[in-house]
Amino acid sequence: MIRVADNLQIVNPIIHAALKDRNPAPIRDLVIRCEKAGAQAIDINSGPLTRNPSGDMVFLVEAVQSVTRLPLLLDSTNPRAIEAGLRLGGSRFIINGFSLEPRKIEAILPLAGRFDVEIIAYLLYPDSRVPSDETERLRIALMVYEAFQKTGLPGDRLIIDPVIAPLMWENGNIQDMGTLSVIRNLPDLLGFPVRTIAGISNLTTGPGPAARKRLLEAAYIPMLAASGLSFALMNMFHELPVAIARACEALADPGIFTYEALDG
Amino acid sequence: MIRVADNLQIVNPIIHAALKDRNPAPIRDLVIRCEKAGAQAIDINSGPLTRNPSGDMVFLVEAVQSVTRLPLLLDSTNPRAIEAGLRLGGSRFIINGFSLEPRKIEAILPLAGRFDVEIIAYLLYPDSRVPSDETERLRIALMVYEAFQKTGLPGDRLIIDPVIAPLMWENGNIQDMGTLSVIRNLPDLLGFPVRTIAGISNLTTGPGPAARKRLLEAAYIPMLAASGLSFALMNMFHELPVAIARACEALADPGIFTYEALDG
Repeated sequence: MIRVADNLQIVNPIIHAALKDRNPAPIRDLVIRCEKAGAQAIDINSGPLTRNPSGDMVFLVEAVQSVTRLPLLLDSTNPRAIEAGLRLGGSRFIINGFSLEPRKIEAILPLAGRFDVEIIAYLLYPDSRVPSDETERLRIALMVYEAFQKTGLPGDRLIIDPVIAPLMWENGNIQDMGTLSVIRNLPDLLGFPVRTIAGISNLTTGPGPAARKRLLEAAYIPMLAASGLSFALMNMFHELPVAIARACEALADPGIFTYEALDG
Repeated sequence: MIRVADNLQIVNPIIHAALKDRNPAPIRDLVIRCEKAGAQAIDINSGPLTRNPSGDMVFLVEAVQSVTRLPLLLDSTNPRAIEAGLRLGGSRFIINGFSLEPRKIEAILPLAGRFDVEIIAYLLYPDSRVPSDETERLRIALMVYEAFQKTGLPGDRLIIDPVIAPLMWENGNIQDMGTLSVIRNLPDLLGFPVRTIAGISNLTTGPGPAARKRLLEAAYIPMLAASGLSFALMNMFHELPVAIARACEALADPGIFTYEALDG
């Protein structure tokens, strides 16, 4: 299970200001700290970037690339921003992402084919509604895969995000238990070793005591890991969930186990 | 997933002295603290009790029963000790346990039938060797179930312990990943909703830093929970694993989720 930092977000005022001022230092600092904390990939969550999508994304990606060689997730709803990032080259890029929403199928999904890169597919309805159970998620996975196949890319370019339901939703936790089966059953359903990603912070969206949120995330991460999750998108500064994610890796490691493995 | 305290052990010098002196106070104190920490059942690990098996077990059980109404696991290799405990009545008893070892099949397993109580079956070879992978564990499960059926008891009296391998063993962690499938597949294999138990402390048997042991246990517990484990036998004074086990319960709870659920 690869740990992907979700820390680099344009909604973070420090990052927002750094982008506006074209000052790469705070971005570099954040990425260095994420990698030190155990990040194995960096999600560049740029939001829609409406004013200058290409220039902004180029600035962000270059700032990140100046301090790391980790894979980068280009996380934007703006296809021009994603394309500008992909054009830079120099990193393993993953497009984050598309869904059944028509404008994403039309404008974002084709970029994966053109640049031959991996792309994340969200199991959401065309109007971005979250499916309400395991059956709906599997049905949407079939539709998403059908759309993906039109790119002509092999299945190993696809990463499916089953979308974790917030615990504050009615039946959110029950949906999340069902999502474990979704992750486990996708390879059988689609006929190849489908990779998956999940955004851990979704689980505890909304009000609630921080320590309990971290504990619930820490309990859910090993369930996801045991179900075969490939990527965990998470806040690298949340110590308990990160330590637990590392412990999951040590438990699943086919090499000789040592307690030092927890150092990552 | 029911939390079973493994704290009451005759190898604990305080408990050993209490038994020798027929002083119930330290036993009562320990059980009260376990229940406060969230124990939902108590394992009375009396060891073989060679000198006065009946008298010793009666003393232990009565000391425990004087402060709790929780289910009690009678954990001994001595059938006379187990029988003496069962004769007392007054609690839900679970025999812990039998295996394919001939003298256990002959002397311990029949007690479950005679007293109509639940019994734990360890997936071990007749010579007590631990099976080395998932296939061996499932094969032994079939043999254990065959022996169990001769008691005439229904399947809901059987609880299977797949035996967690210590991480310090060669391939121990890989065995433990396989054990998750064993737990998941037992109901299909035996044709009824087979309940399971696992001794969490087995995972980290041997030398190693305590904090890392607790972290690995905390990572493994949700994997077991997500695989359908019914009972987790654990040290109730290990805060992180216990908090994580509670969080697993909150995640799986079909009722309305609240952060207060973590209080148990």
